[in-house]
Amino acid sequence: MKQKTAMNKVFAYDTTLRDGAQAQGISFSVEDKLKIVRKLDELGVTYIEAGNPGSNPKDLEFFRRVGEIVLKNARIIAFGSTCKVGTKPEDDPQLASLLSANTPAVAIFGKTWDYHATAILRTTLDENLRMIRETIAFLKLRGKEVVFDAEHFFDGYKANPQYALEALAAAVAGGADSLALCDTNGGSFPDEIYDITGKVVTQFPGVFVGIHCHNDCELAVANSVRAVQAGARQVQGTINGIGERCGNANLCAIIPNLQLKLGFDVIPSAHMQMLTPSARFVSETANIEHNDKAAYVGADAFAHKGGMHIDAVNKNPVSYEHIAPESVGNARKVLMSEVAGRSTILGKIHEVDPSLGKDAPETKRIIERLKELEHEGYQFESAESSFELLVRKMLGKFTPSFQLRSFKVIVNEPAADGMNSSALLKINVGGEDEMTAAEGDGPVNALDRALRRALERFYPEITEMKLTDYKVRVLDSSQASAAKVRVLIETADPHGSWTTIGVSTDIIDASWRALVDAIEYKLARTKPARNHPGSPR
Amino acid sequence: MKQKTAMNKVFAYDTTLRDGAQAQGISFSVEDKLKIVRKLDELGVTYIEAGNPGSNPKDLEFFRRVGEIVLKNARIIAFGSTCKVGTKPEDDPQLASLLSANTPAVAIFGKTWDYHATAILRTTLDENLRMIRETIAFLKLRGKEVVFDAEHFFDGYKANPQYALEALAAAVAGGADSLALCDTNGGSFPDEIYDITGKVVTQFPGVFVGIHCHNDCELAVANSVRAVQAGARQVQGTINGIGERCGNANLCAIIPNLQLKLGFDVIPSAHMQMLTPSARFVSETANIEHNDKAAYVGADAFAHKGGMHIDAVNKNPVSYEHIAPESVGNARKVLMSEVAGRSTILGKIHEVDPSLGKDAPETKRIIERLKELEHEGYQFESAESSFELLVRKMLGKFTPSFQLRSFKVIVNEPAADGMNSSALLKINVGGEDEMTAAEGDGPVNALDRALRRALERFYPEITEMKLTDYKVRVLDSSQASAAKVRVLIETADPHGSWTTIGVSTDIIDASWRALVDAIEYKLARTKPARNHPGSPR
Repeated sequence: MKQKTAMNKVFAYDTTLRDGAQAQGISFSVEDKLKIVRKLDELGVTYIEAGNPGSNPKDLEFFRRVGEIVLKNARIIAFGSTCKVGTKPEDDPQLASLLSANTPAVAIFGKTWDYHATAILRTTLDENLRMIRETIAFLKLRGKEVVFDAEHFFDGYKANPQYALEALAAAVAGGADSLALCDTNGGSFPDEIYDITGKVVTQFPGVFVGIHCHNDCELAVANSVRAVQAGARQVQGTINGIGERCGNANLCAIIPNLQLKLGFDVIPSAHMQMLTPSARFVSETANIEHNDKAAYVGADAFAHKGGMHIDAVNKNPVSYEHIAPESVGNARKVLMSEVAGRSTILGKIHEVDPSLGKDAPETKRIIERLKELEHEGYQFESAESSFELLVRKMLGKFTPSFQLRSFKVIVNEPAADGMNSSALLKINVGGEDEMTAAEGDGPVNALDRALRRALERFYPEITEMKLTDYKVRVLDSSQASAAKVRVLIETADPHGSWTTIGVSTDIIDASWRALVDAIEYKLARTKPARNHPGSPR
Repeated sequence: MKQKTAMNKVFAYDTTLRDGAQAQGISFSVEDKLKIVRKLDELGVTYIEAGNPGSNPKDLEFFRRVGEIVLKNARIIAFGSTCKVGTKPEDDPQLASLLSANTPAVAIFGKTWDYHATAILRTTLDENLRMIRETIAFLKLRGKEVVFDAEHFFDGYKANPQYALEALAAAVAGGADSLALCDTNGGSFPDEIYDITGKVVTQFPGVFVGIHCHNDCELAVANSVRAVQAGARQVQGTINGIGERCGNANLCAIIPNLQLKLGFDVIPSAHMQMLTPSARFVSETANIEHNDKAAYVGADAFAHKGGMHIDAVNKNPVSYEHIAPESVGNARKVLMSEVAGRSTILGKIHEVDPSLGKDAPETKRIIERLKELEHEGYQFESAESSFELLVRKMLGKFTPSFQLRSFKVIVNEPAADGMNSSALLKINVGGEDEMTAAEGDGPVNALDRALRRALERFYPEITEMKLTDYKVRVLDSSQASAAKVRVLIETADPHGSWTTIGVSTDIIDASWRALVDAIEYKLARTKPARNHPGSPR
């Protein structure tokens, strides 16, 4: 039954990790999923639908590990379907998997379009109702909060409104806590969504009504907003609208639309400025290009072209901007870094030197340099360790641990003995030259090994660090293999993990830069006295 | 005055070449613009707003040349602004330029938000009305059809409805043929747009009302559709929604939404299937990546994943697709994936050999091999060309175009002269050895160049192929730089594009595999007789 909640409270229900992961080319590792869960929880969504343990056994490891994370805002949801035609929920292995995910809440999808019940499931309309009712009752008995995902609800309602409502009534009879109305094929229009959602809200006063839209008509955001205006209080969607076909409803537009424009309470208001960084984080983790044109969170969302127009924007931002870019953690492009507002950058600078104000010449120089690097393709949102090193370098609070003299990497095909690459490397540490060679599975691996071998004698602590992720993105696809590449390296030691970045036209060079930063960051952190005599850390 | 027109006729007003060209990174040459005009005319839009001769003198050459084209459906519009504060239209050089464009119709933008008149133009409210009225009267006297673009109309109406309507009345008094209501900052919502547009339609029965939206809240398509439902009959937008910040309203979604879903008459119905090719054409001409996720016209718009689901789509497309993909010139795309059912794979096998049944031993062997490769990290859902080559190889319908003898790639740091990599390559083509060397910006680039150089003599057609995208993903991040990498290469020639895949622990080797497949696929397609004596293709 619906708890007492403020009239304007809307529950954000993120399904990036379940429905979003259906998108072509998206494939999250367990580590990726755990990182995104933490980020979504920080942002403040209420629900995180994170996987389908019944259809994907790999998800079980994820659910085991996510159970160990203490979340501040979000509840984790495991997704599954009703029991099969002619079977009992107790005998359904898919529901057993769902329960073994051990989440506080579950989402169950079922048919509400009569045609789907008879033509796809090939069963009777009554049997479909039984499957919905008994499955939900089975899960409620086991203490779960249950969301009923009413698949194809709007198409179903248009075809046979009475039956579509009977299917919802079956879910309510089973004890469903909320009814999520799905526009599964993405073909519905804002006026239809508004009217039909309003009818459901009126008909089922005891439960929360949710909305789940797809973007096949480029209407998913509008449809979600209109459903809330009609009384829905749970909004399902994904970060950046990722999802199969044309994507799911985009929470990065829906959340600010509802909260900043219409006065609904969706996430803690102080968290709204985490929206842009969170959106970028998910793009980077999914290894997809972040859409520059995205509403609210795109790099161009508040871009202004020069001249008189800019003067007018500066004088009266409200005259040319529908909201303040900082309110969603974005920035006006002509004045500010693409990555983040000045306050974000200042926060980072303060970690190195708390005495610097926002108008200090050092601050201005760092922002200038940041802009240049971003223009070259650097993106520090997910490589804060490289940004910290940059700040240290510019403030004179950095002494390199070593100097590269030269390296040569050779790749031979066919390989001599499995290891096709070898690297020769010469570095200088405190005036002393060291030369090493190493073989590897590929050139970056050979180079990484040669560098570690050369440094071990001087800095034995690097043996405890481990490269845990390595991502490559091409920045300007029009030039393909001669285009710039951005390499992100994630490194871990027993104390934590950090990410560094390198950009170059050459993947070896870009990897080298990220590798050097990874090592320098480790050494700066563990040996402040030796490396940074003047450093406060 | 409004002509007699069927109630359901909506005039599509394309501003790709004017407002769309404001987007960052978009720069059309005169030739580009002329090509796009022809394409838009073929598609059947009613208006093509093609430039701003007053602010961009280069546009005059375009207008001179476009005047020589005989258009079947469209009228060309030149865009300008009202005369300046305190001046007469007769004395305004910007209006003189506008007239010299010699178009049948013009669009004039003016202020309708009282705040903009007083704070940005720094004039009186009455003077702003005079500027609108006299400018339009001046152009009507010279025989032009005049569209009045009511800048910031919705913000203006919300601030001061009476003045916003007075500004429209001034345009009507001057003789405007249509009033285009602009949501210039893109901050308005569908319900507001519907209500306010409806009031304007009622208030000005003698003129056409138009709608011009921006996508800053990801609501531009919905807002445009709602305006038409409220009585607007002219819809302004751009192909693929290109435009500054988050873009203009996307005609590629609006046109099918209005015509296929709501029964309006926008373009000749036989032309609807030109929508997807036209959208791709504009992306290519603008040299921007075509959005795979775009509603109606994206490559993934009708993509389906997964076994059982695909069977259902094949049986009853209406149950999982909101429209037939062919109706907008797009196609259903069935993705290969871990979960793809046998029927999907069989469809692909049939493209190579239609005689093979689902229980044929060859089919089973292919499915076994596919599983092995997926286990190794291959993912064919976005690399169907590599999958087709795999099927050909397993069915004995493939003869390699060349054999690799050996290659050696050397990367030197510091680089000698900017190019830090060199590749030596030996291949054998039909018994003949060929050895080449090439330098490159990075090892893959050097290898790509050396391979093309070696093959050109034997297969001159490879000079017309171009690598258009190169993506790398690390598969098992626990081993980082020694982990497996998956490389996807997208290649294009004048006839289309294709994607190939390579997986290896070594990025050079993975890139090499994808590169070889890209070339073999191209050669298999263009030279079937030589490469595949027994092939049906």
